[in-house]
Amino acid sequence: MKFLKYLFIFIPISIAFEFMHMNPILIFIASALSILPLAGLMGEATEEISYYAGPRVGGFLNATFGNATELIIAFFALKEGLFDVVKASIAGSVIGNILLVLGASLLFGGLKFKTQTFNKKAIEVSSSMLLFAVIGLVIPAIFTHTVKPELLTTRYEILSIGVAALMFLIYILGLYFSFYTHKDIYGSDHGEAHEVKWSLKKSIIVLVVATVLIALESEFLVSSVEPMTKAVGLSEFFVGIILIPIIGNAAEHSTAIIMAMKNKMDVAIEIAIGSSLQIILFVTPILIFLSLLFKPMSIVFNEFELIAMFVSVLIANRVANDGESNWLEGMQLIVVYIIIGISFLIL
Amino acid sequence: MKFLKYLFIFIPISIAFEFMHMNPILIFIASALSILPLAGLMGEATEEISYYAGPRVGGFLNATFGNATELIIAFFALKEGLFDVVKASIAGSVIGNILLVLGASLLFGGLKFKTQTFNKKAIEVSSSMLLFAVIGLVIPAIFTHTVKPELLTTRYEILSIGVAALMFLIYILGLYFSFYTHKDIYGSDHGEAHEVKWSLKKSIIVLVVATVLIALESEFLVSSVEPMTKAVGLSEFFVGIILIPIIGNAAEHSTAIIMAMKNKMDVAIEIAIGSSLQIILFVTPILIFLSLLFKPMSIVFNEFELIAMFVSVLIANRVANDGESNWLEGMQLIVVYIIIGISFLIL
Amino acid sequence: MKFLKYLFIFIPISIAFEFMHMNPILIFIASALSILPLAGLMGEATEEISYYAGPRVGGFLNATFGNATELIIAFFALKEGLFDVVKASIAGSVIGNILLVLGASLLFGGLKFKTQTFNKKAIEVSSSMLLFAVIGLVIPAIFTHTVKPELLTTRYEILSIGVAALMFLIYILGLYFSFYTHKDIYGSDHGEAHEVKWSLKKSIIVLVVATVLIALESEFLVSSVEPMTKAVGLSEFFVGIILIPIIGNAAEHSTAIIMAMKNKMDVAIEIAIGSSLQIILFVTPILIFLSLLFKPMSIVFNEFELIAMFVSVLIANRVANDGESNWLEGMQLIVVYIIIGISFLIL
Repeated sequence: MKFLKYLFIFIPISIAFEFMHMNPILIFIASALSILPLAGLMGEATEEISYYAGPRVGGFLNATFGNATELIIAFFALKEGLFDVVKASIAGSVIGNILLVLGASLLFGGLKFKTQTFNKKAIEVSSSMLLFAVIGLVIPAIFTHTVKPELLTTRYEILSIGVAALMFLIYILGLYFSFYTHKDIYGSDHGEAHEVKWSLKKSIIVLVVATVLIALESEFLVSSVEPMTKAVGLSEFFVGIILIPIIGNAAEHSTAIIMAMKNKMDVAIEIAIGSSLQIILFVTPILIFLSLLFKPMSIVFNEFELIAMFVSVLIANRVANDGESNWLEGMQLIVVYIIIGISFLIL
Repeated sequence: MKFLKYLFIFIPISIAFEFMHMNPILIFIASALSILPLAGLMGEATEEISYYAGPRVGGFLNATFGNATELIIAFFALKEGLFDVVKASIAGSVIGNILLVLGASLLFGGLKFKTQTFNKKAIEVSSSMLLFAVIGLVIPAIFTHTVKPELLTTRYEILSIGVAALMFLIYILGLYFSFYTHKDIYGSDHGEAHEVKWSLKKSIIVLVVATVLIALESEFLVSSVEPMTKAVGLSEFFVGIILIPIIGNAAEHSTAIIMAMKNKMDVAIEIAIGSSLQIILFVTPILIFLSLLFKPMSIVFNEFELIAMFVSVLIANRVANDGESNWLEGMQLIVVYIIIGISFLIL
Repeated sequence: MKFLKYLFIFIPISIAFEFMHMNPILIFIASALSILPLAGLMGEATEEISYYAGPRVGGFLNATFGNATELIIAFFALKEGLFDVVKASIAGSVIGNILLVLGASLLFGGLKFKTQTFNKKAIEVSSSMLLFAVIGLVIPAIFTHTVKPELLTTRYEILSIGVAALMFLIYILGLYFSFYTHKDIYGSDHGEAHEVKWSLKKSIIVLVVATVLIALESEFLVSSVEPMTKAVGLSEFFVGIILIPIIGNAAEHSTAIIMAMKNKMDVAIEIAIGSSLQIILFVTPILIFLSLLFKPMSIVFNEFELIAMFVSVLIANRVANDGESNWLEGMQLIVVYIIIGISFLIL
C-alpha cells in the first residue's frame, strides 16, 4: 500500500492542530489519518523482527503485536474513563474483522476467481475458538442482565477478572496448540518466502518510533472523541464501533483483501478470524487488567454488542464450514455490516 | 392436486357471503378456501409463461411471482393498517415454509425412502443466504429494543427503508448469482421436462384472472380477520402467523411434499428454503415500500417472531449441513411447528 | 472406578447424621457422597439386566434408566416444591454433560491421542436432535417472556403439558429410529463384548436395593438444600445447576472419560450428548407429568438457563460437525463451564 506513505504528513499536521487547539473534528481526522501509515509501519517492523527471531518466537510476536494499534488506542480511551468507547471498539473490531474485512476479501477475491477454496481444517479451529470465546463473553453479560439488580455487588469485579484470566489462558493454550502440538494442520502456505528489508537494529528502531508516535496520536484521537461527537451529533457508540476499528485495522484490511485477490484465501480468512480471536482473547483481558490501574472496567458488554458479535461469529462459522467462498457471500457480509453501521449512525 | 378444483365453488360462495354480510367466520373460511385453488392456478399460469419466456427470464418470473398470493394478502392487510397481522404473516411464512413444508417433505419422503440425499452445495448457498437475511432483520430490531426509548425518533423510518433496500439488493444479486455467475452449481435437476398445457395467450389471461380474483378474495379475507378473531377468541397473531401463511403457501406445500415422495429432495428443499428467502428478501421490502403509500410500516419484528424465524433458519442450516435427511428430522421440525402453534393458539 | 466402593460408608453416616439432626452442610455432603457409589451400582445392575434382556429391550432399558439418579433427586425436589432447584438441575445436567463431561473427555482423550476421530453420522443425529429439543424448550419460554403479563393465564399449564407430551413423543420416536429404522448408522462399536458379572436375579435385587437407597439419600439431600444454602451463603441456583448434576452424573462422567482415554470417542461423545437428550426429552416431561400429583410445574426455564443450554447445544453441534476432536476443544468447553460456575458461585 504505497500511497499510505503520503499520510505521514498528517503526523506534524495533527500535532500542530492539537497545540493550536483546533476544532476537535479536524484533530480527530488528522490523528486518524496519521495512525494509518504508522500502523502499517509497525506491522512491517514486527514482521522483520519476527523473521530474525525465527519461526516460533516470530509467530508469537506476530500473533501478539498484530493488534497493537487497537490496544494502544483502547488504552488511552480506558485512561480517559471512556469505557463505552473501549467496549464498543472491541466489539467493533470483532464485527469489522468478520463482516467488513472478511466480507471485502470474499467479495473482491470472488469477483476475480469464481469459486475460491481454503484449508477448512485450520479455519474451523479458529472459527470454533471464536464461537467459544464469544460465548465466554456472553455468559457474564447474560448473568448480569438476568439476575435481580439488588444481587449485583462489587463481586462482579471478581467475575470480570476471572473471565479475563480464563480468556487469556485460552489464548496462551491456543498459541501452544498452533505452534507446538498441532502445528502441522496449518500447512506451509502460512509462511511465504520473506524478503529481508531492514536490519534487526533498524527494525527495532522503527518499531519503537512507530509505537511512540501511535501512542501520541491515539491520545490526540481519544481526547477529541467527546467534543467531536458533540459537535457533529454522532454517538460515541458509532465512533467506537465503526470508526475506531476501521482506523485500527486498516493495515489488516488491505493485507487481507490483497491476499484474497491473489487467491490466497487461507491467509485472508486467517487474518480476519485470527484478528478477531486476538481481540477477544488477548486485547480484552489485557484491557481489563490494565483498567485495574485506573478504575476497574467490567467485562460486561451491552446486549447489542453481544448480539452483533454473536451473529458475526455464527456467520464466520457458516463461511468456514464448507471450505469454499464466492462473491455473494462477501456481499452479504458487507450488507450486514452496513445495516449495523446505519443503525448506529442514525442514533 | 386435482381435488383442489372443487374448491372453486367457494369463489361465488364467498362473494355471496360478503354481500349478505354473513358471519365473519364464514366469510374468512369461504374466502380462504377459494384462495387455495386460485393460488394453484396462478402458479400454473406463471410456469407456463416462464416456459414461453425461456429459461432465464422464466426463472426470474417463477422466482418473483412464487409468493404472489402472500404478497396480495399482505397488501390488503397493510392497506387496512393491520401491521401486526402483516408482520406475523411474514414471520409465519418463513417459519411455516421451514418447519411445516420442509418438515412434512422430510417426513413423508423419509417414510418412503430410508435416507434421502440432496445436492448439498446448492442448498448451502440458499440456507446460508437465509441466515444472513434473518440476521439482517434481527439487527434493526435488537437496536430498537436495546437503545433507550427517548432515542427512538422518526429516523427509524429511514432505517426501515434502508434495510429494505439492502435486502432487495441482495435479492437481485442472488438472482444474478444463481442465473448467471454460478448457474452450474444448481445442476440440471432443477428444470424438469415441461409439458405445454396452455398457449401463451391463454396463460396470460389465466394469470390476470387469477390475480384479480385472489385480490378480491384477499380483501374479503383481511376484512373478516378482525371481527372473526373477536368472535372466535383467537388472537390476530395466531391468524397472522399460522392461518394466513398456510392459506398463502398451500400450493408450495403440496408441490414440495409430492417432490419429496418422488425422492426429488433437491426440489422439495429448494421450494421450502427458496420460498422463505423470497419472503424476507423480496416480499418484505416490497411491503415496506408499499406501506409508504399509506402509513409507513417499520421493519422491526417483535422478539417472538424474530426468535422463531432465527431458530427456524438455524434448523434449516442444520438440515442442509449433511446433505442427507430422514423421517425423524421431519418429525422434529413438525413438532417445533406444533409447539409454536399451540403457544399462539392458547394465547 | 473401584475407589467408589469406599464411599458406601457414607450411607450409614448420612442416615446417622439425618436422625441426629446434624448440620445440614454435613447431611448434604454425606448424602451426596453416598449417592455416587449407589448411582454406579444402579448403572451396573441396569447393564446386567439389559444384557439378559437382549440387545433391543436392553437398549431401551439402558436409555431409559441412564438418568434414573437425576430423576429420583429431582422427584424429591419437586415434592418439596423446589421448582427452581428442579429446573436448575435439569439445565445443569444438560450443560454439565456437554461442557464438563464432553469437555473432560475431549481434553483427557486429546492429551493421550493427538487427533481423535468419531462416527460423524451417528453423532450428528443426536446433536441435531439436541438442537431441536432445546428449541422446543425455548419457544414456550420466549412466548411467556414476550407476551404481556396480563395475557398469562392458567392456560399455560396446558402449554407445559402439551410441550412435555410432544417432547416425550420425540423421545419414543428417537428410540424407534435408533433401534429399528436406522439401527445401522450406529455401527457395532456401540455394544462391546459384555462380561457377565451377576445372575439376572442378583442384578434385579441390586437394582431394587440401589434404587431404594438412592431415593432415601435423595430425600436427605434435598431436604438439606434450603438450610444448607442459607448456612453457607450459596444460592439455590448454584446448588441446582452445578452441584446436583455433578452428583447425579458422576457415573457417566467417569465412564465417558475412561472411554475417551481408550480412544473410543464415539462412546464418550454419545454418553455426553445422549444423556443430555434424555434429560430434555425424557426426564423433563416425566417431571412435568409427576408435578401434576403435587403442584403443576411449568416447563418455562429462566433466561439464563435457556441461553446456557442453547449455547451448550450449539457447542455440541460445532464439536460434532467435523468428526474430529483435540485437547484444545476440550479445554475450551471446560473453561465455558468454569465461567458459568463462577457466575453462579459469586451470586
